Amino acid sequence: MSVVTCSRGAALAIAADVRAGRRSAVSVVTGVIADMEIRDTRFNSVTRILGAAAVAQAEEVDRAVAAGKDPGPLAGVPFGVKDLFDVRGEVTTAGSIVLRDNLPATADATVVARLRAAGAVPVATLNMDEFAYGFSTENAHSGTTRNPHDPARLAGGSSGGSAASVAAGMLPFTLGSDTNGSIRVPSSLCGVWGLKPTYGQMPLKGVYPFVASLDVVGPMASTVEDLQAVYSIMAGAPPLALPDVGDVRVARLGGWFASNISPELTAGIDAVMAHLGRDRVIELPEVARARASAFLISAAEGGNLHLPRLRRRAMQYDPATRGRLMAGAMLPAATFVQAQRFRRWFREQVHAALAQADVFIAPATVGVAPRIDQPTITLDGKTVSARANLGIFTQPISLTGLPVLAAPLAGDGLPLGIQLIGRPGGEDRLFAVAGELQRAGLARCQPLDAGYARKDSGC
Amino acid sequence: MSVVTCSRGAALAIAADVRAGRRSAVSVVTGVIADMEIRDTRFNSVTRILGAAAVAQAEEVDRAVAAGKDPGPLAGVPFGVKDLFDVRGEVTTAGSIVLRDNLPATADATVVARLRAAGAVPVATLNMDEFAYGFSTENAHSGTTRNPHDPARLAGGSSGGSAASVAAGMLPFTLGSDTNGSIRVPSSLCGVWGLKPTYGQMPLKGVYPFVASLDVVGPMASTVEDLQAVYSIMAGAPPLALPDVGDVRVARLGGWFASNISPELTAGIDAVMAHLGRDRVIELPEVARARASAFLISAAEGGNLHLPRLRRRAMQYDPATRGRLMAGAMLPAATFVQAQRFRRWFREQVHAALAQADVFIAPATVGVAPRIDQPTITLDGKTVSARANLGIFTQPISLTGLPVLAAPLAGDGLPLGIQLIGRPGGEDRLFAVAGELQRAGLARCQPLDAGYARKDSGC
Repeated sequence: MSVVTCSRGAALAIAADVRAGRRSAVSVVTGVIADMEIRDTRFNSVTRILGAAAVAQAEEVDRAVAAGKDPGPLAGVPFGVKDLFDVRGEVTTAGSIVLRDNLPATADATVVARLRAAGAVPVATLNMDEFAYGFSTENAHSGTTRNPHDPARLAGGSSGGSAASVAAGMLPFTLGSDTNGSIRVPSSLCGVWGLKPTYGQMPLKGVYPFVASLDVVGPMASTVEDLQAVYSIMAGAPPLALPDVGDVRVARLGGWFASNISPELTAGIDAVMAHLGRDRVIELPEVARARASAFLISAAEGGNLHLPRLRRRAMQYDPATRGRLMAGAMLPAATFVQAQRFRRWFREQVHAALAQADVFIAPATVGVAPRIDQPTITLDGKTVSARANLGIFTQPISLTGLPVLAAPLAGDGLPLGIQLIGRPGGEDRLFAVAGELQRAGLARCQPLDAGYARKDSGC
Repeated sequence: MSVVTCSRGAALAIAADVRAGRRSAVSVVTGVIADMEIRDTRFNSVTRILGAAAVAQAEEVDRAVAAGKDPGPLAGVPFGVKDLFDVRGEVTTAGSIVLRDNLPATADATVVARLRAAGAVPVATLNMDEFAYGFSTENAHSGTTRNPHDPARLAGGSSGGSAASVAAGMLPFTLGSDTNGSIRVPSSLCGVWGLKPTYGQMPLKGVYPFVASLDVVGPMASTVEDLQAVYSIMAGAPPLALPDVGDVRVARLGGWFASNISPELTAGIDAVMAHLGRDRVIELPEVARARASAFLISAAEGGNLHLPRLRRRAMQYDPATRGRLMAGAMLPAATFVQAQRFRRWFREQVHAALAQADVFIAPATVGVAPRIDQPTITLDGKTVSARANLGIFTQPISLTGLPVLAAPLAGDGLPLGIQLIGRPGGEDRLFAVAGELQRAGLARCQPLDAGYARKDSGC
C-alpha cells in the first residue's frame, strides 16, 4: 500500500529508484515476473510473460544508469499491454487463435515504442475479450479474467487483463484500448485509474483495430500521477506536474446517467460534487439512441473488418464474438447510415452542452462487478445480461470522441468508478480534477499486495 | 443563334436589355412562357409553368427599372429549376407522386432565393428521374424528356429537363443537381454547359436530398459567361469577368477514362489538349472500384433516406427507383463500410494526382445520347443498359467531391461533352479553361431556336 500513498505514483517511484541506482531495473523486472508467475494463477490476467526480452531490456537500462546516461523518465518500470498492441518479436493475437499463425511483430506499436524509449519495460501481454468485442474478458481461448477484489467476480472488459493486473498490484501500469468502454468499464470494476484519450489523438499504428471510427488506446494505473506520466509519454510529450484544479466547472449528468445506479455510486458522486462545490445537473438528449448507435456502428465496422476472415474460418472465432461480428456484417446498410446520421447530431448536442461545463461527471457502470457464475446486472428492475449491458454509461460517450478519465471511488466495498468527461483535447482538466479527488481521498486505487513496491523504495 | 455568339451570354444579354429599359421583364417572361407552352410538347422538359408568380415578379423588376432602382445583375432573366428545388408557393415533388400532397414550400431554396434577389425569375419546374435516382429522365409519372437535338433520343439525367430546356433554347439557364453525374451527363448529351461545384460549397437548404455525402447543386447554361454569372450568384458572390486561362496545367485522364469512348470524343479531347499545348496523361488507380463505391454509397444513403416512406407506400414509387432504393436499404452494412473505406483511400489518391495538374480532362459519357426506344450503350464491346451506365465517367469523380465543369464539344453531329475537373474550390480555373475553349471554337452550346433572344437584343 506504500505505493498508493506515494505522491509521485508507483511507476514514478520505481523510475526514481532505478535512476538513482537504489534499485536495479533487472531486480524490479525479475521480481514482477516472479510475482506474476505465482499470483496470476488466481486472476488469469496475463496471457504471456515476455521474460527474456524484458530482462535484456532491463539490463540495458541498468547499463545506462551505470554509464551515467539518462535511462528515461520511466527507467526500469515494468508494464503490460492488452494483447492487441504490437510488441516486437511477439505475435499479436488480439485475444484470438485466428491470428496465432501470424508472423511476430517486427516493430513495437508506436505507443509501446515511446514507452520503451522512456525506459519502461514490457513484461507481459494481457487477457481481453476476443478482438476487443465484449465487456467481460471471458475469452473462449484464454479463459476468464477474475476480479482481484473478488475472484468470483468479473474484471470487466475488454481490457480486463490490463485492469486486473494493476488492481492485483502485479503491474504499476498497463495499456488498454477503449471502443465502447473497454478501458473505463474494467478500470471501474477493478478500482484502478484509466484514461480514454480524445479520439484521434493517440497513434494507433501497431494496434489491432476493432472499430476504426471509435477505437482509442490509453493507460491504466494505480495513481493519477502515473496515469498522467504514461499518457504524456504515449502522446509523445514529456511528463508534467499535475495541473491545479483551479475553478474548473464541473456538472453531473442527469437523466439516463442518474438512472439504474447503485445508492453507493449516487452517494459517491454526491460527495464529489459537494467537494468541488458544484451542483449543476446537465441532461443530454437521446442517450438511449446514442448507445444504440454506438452498438450498431461497432457491429457494422467490426463486421466489415472481419468479414473476409469469417468467410474462411468462422469456426475458429470465440462463439460470442463470431455471432456479434456476423450479425454486424449483415446489418442493413440503411440502419448503419441512420446510426451515422444520428451520431453527427448527437455529437453536436454534446459539444453544445460542454459550453456549460468543463467536465461532466457520470457513473462508469451501474454498480459493482457482476459475479462470474451469474454475469447479470439490473436495469429498470429487470435482470439482464451483464455482457451486453456493462457499457450503458460508457457507450453513449464513445460516440462523441471526448476524452474520459475513469476514477475509482474511495470506499469499503467492491470498487465503483465514475467517468470524468472533458472537451476534445481537454485531458489536462481531467487530470486536475482526478488529482484533486485523489488528494482529498474521494477517489483512490488500492492495489492488492503490490509486489513491485519494496519497503526500501525511495518514494 | 445570336445569343450564343454574344460575348456576354444569353442571360446576361437579357439582363442588360432589361436594366437599360430596352426590353421589359414582363415581355421576356411572357415570351418565354408562351414559347415553352408551344415548343415543350416536343421535349417534355417542363413539369410546371409558374405563370402568375413569374409575371408578378417580372412586373416588380420593371417597376424597379422605372423607378431608377437597381433591379439586380440578372434582372428579368427567366430560369427553370429541376423539380427538387423549393420555390415558394409550389409543392416540391422531386419528380414523384409520393410527395404531391406535401404543403407548398413557404420559402425558396437558398440558391433560388439568391437568384431571385439578383432579379432572375423562376418560370418553370423541370423534369427529372424520380428522386434524382437515374441517368435517363424517364419518369413513370411525368414521362420521358426528349433530347432537343434528336427527340428520338434520351436527354440524359437526372437533371434532364434542366439540360433539354436550355438546349432547346427555351430557357437561358436552369438549375440541376449532381450526385453521380446528374448535371454532367444531361449537359453533355444535350450539348449545354454545366457545372457541378465543389462538394459542400453550395447551400442545400430547400433542396430535396438524395445522397447527403455526394449531393451538389449547380447551373446549366448556353454560354460560359452565363454559367459563371449564375454560379457566382448561387454561391453568394458578385459575378466577375471570366479569368484568363494563363498557364493552367491541364492533363487528360488515361486508362478507364480513355476506354470505350467514341472516336469523335477522342478526337475532340485531342484537339483540346493540342490547343492548350499539353500532352500529359494521368492515370487514376482503381477507377472501377471508385464507380462501384459511388453506386453502393448512393444506394445505401438513398435507401436510408427513403426507407420509412417505402415501408408505407412503396407502390407509389416509380418502379425503377423503388427497386434501386429497396436494394440499397438492404445492402449489408459491411459492404457500405467497405465502400466508405475505399472512398477515403481513393480521394487521397486523386488529390495527390492533382499535384501534377490544375485541371484534369476526361470524357463525360462514352458517346452521344442513346435512342429512347433502345436505351443502351456499348462497353467493352457489349451492349449494356444506358440507364445504369451513362455515368461510368462521372461517378468515379463524384466520389472525390471535386468541382467539374461539363463542356459541350463543338462538332457537326449529336452533342458530346467533356469534363474539366479541378481542385476543391478551384472553379475559377475551370471557367478559365472553359472560356478559352469557347473562345477558340472548340466547345460551344448551340441551342435550337432561342425564343428569349430578340433580334433587337442589346447584345
